[in-house]
Amino acid sequence: MDTLTAILERRSIRKFTGKSIGRDDLLTLAKAGMAAPSSRDTRHFHFIIVDDEQLIEKLTEGLPYSKMLLTAKHAIIVASDLSVAHGGGDTDYWVQDCAAAAENVLLAAKALGLGACWTAAHPREERVEHVRETLSIPENIRPLCVIAVGVPTGDDKPRDKFDEAHVAWNAWSAE
Amino acid sequence: MDTLTAILERRSIRKFTGKSIGRDDLLTLAKAGMAAPSSRDTRHFHFIIVDDEQLIEKLTEGLPYSKMLLTAKHAIIVASDLSVAHGGGDTDYWVQDCAAAAENVLLAAKALGLGACWTAAHPREERVEHVRETLSIPENIRPLCVIAVGVPTGDDKPRDKFDEAHVAWNAWSAE
Repeated sequence: MDTLTAILERRSIRKFTGKSIGRDDLLTLAKAGMAAPSSRDTRHFHFIIVDDEQLIEKLTEGLPYSKMLLTAKHAIIVASDLSVAHGGGDTDYWVQDCAAAAENVLLAAKALGLGACWTAAHPREERVEHVRETLSIPENIRPLCVIAVGVPTGDDKPRDKFDEAHVAWNAWSAE
Repeated sequence: MDTLTAILERRSIRKFTGKSIGRDDLLTLAKAGMAAPSSRDTRHFHFIIVDDEQLIEKLTEGLPYSKMLLTAKHAIIVASDLSVAHGGGDTDYWVQDCAAAAENVLLAAKALGLGACWTAAHPREERVEHVRETLSIPENIRPLCVIAVGVPTGDDKPRDKFDEAHVAWNAWSAE
């Protein structure tokens, strides 16, 4: 799929058929995430890919707004090794880096004909702890988000979110 | 360009020819950024596109690691209207959203045959203030980063950053 098409037509998908996705495709999504830039090129990204039905169910129990995981049937957790990231947990460089990686995962899913939806873990401590405990993630690894991944029904249509009033040339101009 | 190719072969570009880019292409980059997801779909993104030579020079004066702006000759600032973003400046949802938007800009640049390099403003207050003052950005709008955009010389070659040890299946496993 053409890059600009993927970027402009990607949207959060919450309606899934419930079909399974092969591990090759899931690994491609993690590979796409890992290609994101990281501050000082520290490459602190970790990806936990979940395709076990019981773990998916357990994840949804502690994450509000995550019911689509049950029909998506797969999840990718984007996380940072804070002992490696520039500034560790004391700056939010790790957040910026992991968010860029998450966007890569969403776009790669779109390119593969899959659907994806980003659910926040960080900065909500109770959600971070729930993800950590469910997947046995150690203390130095902090999950940013849980991305539901599945086969879309096609009911979620692309939307044009462009608003030219949010673009300024060379200096700010109030619209 | 194919989406997965753009994602996997994109890299930070710091070597530019100094050639100019048309405003249509620059606007496409902002459009790509605006297509990123935002927490609660608040669409709080703002993009300031700089192609004025004097402003580019002034931007570099207050931003370390930004000398490539001088040969890139163009910059896109990704910013958030904190009065609109979910949680305002009190959570870092705006950071996550703007970082996803920035990644879209980088990928769209790659797809158009351009080169781009992300330079952080936030969370460094002195850099945020320098960008704000240089471009007359009001208080409620917070710049996340300054992206240098230009025509690449071709000397910056793609790198494979994939490390399978950073992928876990269904639960954490120490490598």
